[in-house]
Amino acid sequence: MILDQTRLPWAMEWLECRDVASVCRAISALAVRGAPAIGVAAAYGMALSKDPASDAKALKASRPTAVDLEHAVDFVLGEMKTGSSAIDAAKEWDAMNSGKCRAISEHGAGLLKSGDSVLTHCNTGFLATNEYGSALGAVKAAHAQGKRIFVYVDETRPRLQGSLTSWELLRDGIPHKVIVDAAAGSLMRQGKINAVMVGADRIAKNGDFANKIGTYPAAVLAHENKVPFYVLAPASSFDRSVADGSGITIEYRDESEVLGERFPGAGALNPAFDVTPAKYVTAFVNEFGIFRRMGDLWKSMKE
Amino acid sequence: MILDQTRLPWAMEWLECRDVASVCRAISALAVRGAPAIGVAAAYGMALSKDPASDAKALKASRPTAVDLEHAVDFVLGEMKTGSSAIDAAKEWDAMNSGKCRAISEHGAGLLKSGDSVLTHCNTGFLATNEYGSALGAVKAAHAQGKRIFVYVDETRPRLQGSLTSWELLRDGIPHKVIVDAAAGSLMRQGKINAVMVGADRIAKNGDFANKIGTYPAAVLAHENKVPFYVLAPASSFDRSVADGSGITIEYRDESEVLGERFPGAGALNPAFDVTPAKYVTAFVNEFGIFRRMGDLWKSMKE
Repeated sequence: MILDQTRLPWAMEWLECRDVASVCRAISALAVRGAPAIGVAAAYGMALSKDPASDAKALKASRPTAVDLEHAVDFVLGEMKTGSSAIDAAKEWDAMNSGKCRAISEHGAGLLKSGDSVLTHCNTGFLATNEYGSALGAVKAAHAQGKRIFVYVDETRPRLQGSLTSWELLRDGIPHKVIVDAAAGSLMRQGKINAVMVGADRIAKNGDFANKIGTYPAAVLAHENKVPFYVLAPASSFDRSVADGSGITIEYRDESEVLGERFPGAGALNPAFDVTPAKYVTAFVNEFGIFRRMGDLWKSMKE
Repeated sequence: MILDQTRLPWAMEWLECRDVASVCRAISALAVRGAPAIGVAAAYGMALSKDPASDAKALKASRPTAVDLEHAVDFVLGEMKTGSSAIDAAKEWDAMNSGKCRAISEHGAGLLKSGDSVLTHCNTGFLATNEYGSALGAVKAAHAQGKRIFVYVDETRPRLQGSLTSWELLRDGIPHKVIVDAAAGSLMRQGKINAVMVGADRIAKNGDFANKIGTYPAAVLAHENKVPFYVLAPASSFDRSVADGSGITIEYRDESEVLGERFPGAGALNPAFDVTPAKYVTAFVNEFGIFRRMGDLWKSMKE
């Protein structure tokens, strides 16, 4: 059962997936989105598989940018080879993922102090991770610790995943305002944003990373205005097989997502992600802690 | 008669304004928008005035950021004091404005070479200026000279004035793609944009300027990626009474423009403009020429 995020915030509708093809469709159509949540959905998808090798391939191809998806599918395949059932392996991935996101949220909360305003881009809450959240998890954990945190929510065109962030924040009673993506820069310049916290779909060996389109501008503007810029993602979002950002495949989606009804006759270019160079990242936060240098980060993940 | 730009691109509908209040409403509601076009509308609005002093005040207050509006109204008031009729003065402002925009378009076209791709933000074509255009005028003039120009059109949230730009480009057969505002940064990083060309609503004495929200991020990203960033606006958009950007009043518009139907229960912050520091501007283009230094620019305007 997958909560259909394209129907939020108006309705809570569940998609019942009885085969791998329907899981792939749910992922492609963004019914489930957010790198860790896609990974969990794909892990359970493997439990529906009749032909693990080819279904693993189909699931991995359902969205190309997030590496968590690949890691989740490979985890289930690996466990199956050792004699586990796919459903047990999927449950294990799910539980591990929740544990990681909880740790990320707690580490990340330590970066925020009472009175801070945080900029978010896309949705990185429990909808994106299945439980706890990554970047938004840190905001929620800080709020739960009694810190006063205000959130500026990028609406995140073209799919407006900011509406999912706002929906989560309303549930938790965390004060926030929605802004158009292009308004974040002038808020930073006015000193109204104390930290930018984002997730990541794939992080290369050198720290360059892919995330929702609009992350790169937020990073450059944070850098220009001396606002700390944090990337919060589980270790499974790191891909040491990719040397730098130029090796990350960027998904281009249908132009209709951008054009809607307002641009009759026009065409659009619709990259779903952009690549942010490592030099703009103040620190990475994963389940092992807060890392300001990639060397320390890779070392922690070997242990 | 004012072409209702909120109905474009679906319909060409004209608003018939028989009093100053209806002109003010058309300006506030963005039926007519774009600093020079607002100025022309307000000049003709003065020709409907029963009480020039208080109507001038109401017109100037209909939108606070663009200075062209004030200059146009003051021009008509000044001409009336010398015995001209308001309608003759308005026609003169209109004709002068067209001449300025034509000159700006021709100067600006000289900054583009065949094969260039230009990023536009908001709409700066004839819809924004009443004739010719400013930044988009330069693109059209370059195209008319036979140069191959491609345009990346920022959709320009929240009001999507990019749809007006696309509509104008389709009419002229100029190839373009619409992008979400947050995609421009990664296109610059990929070397796909050769110049950014924008208009301006008010330019302070030191060259800081206000323009549509999202201009500041585009300027910072252009600077970071060594892409030339040009500001094209008539001399009447310069305001030597304001020392720097901190003195420019920014209009905040209703949050419903941002929220639409996707954010039930949420609030929004909706600044219509941002301020871009002069240091990010490669050159200003006005009817007198291309200026890379503010000193030269102010000198040209005294002559």
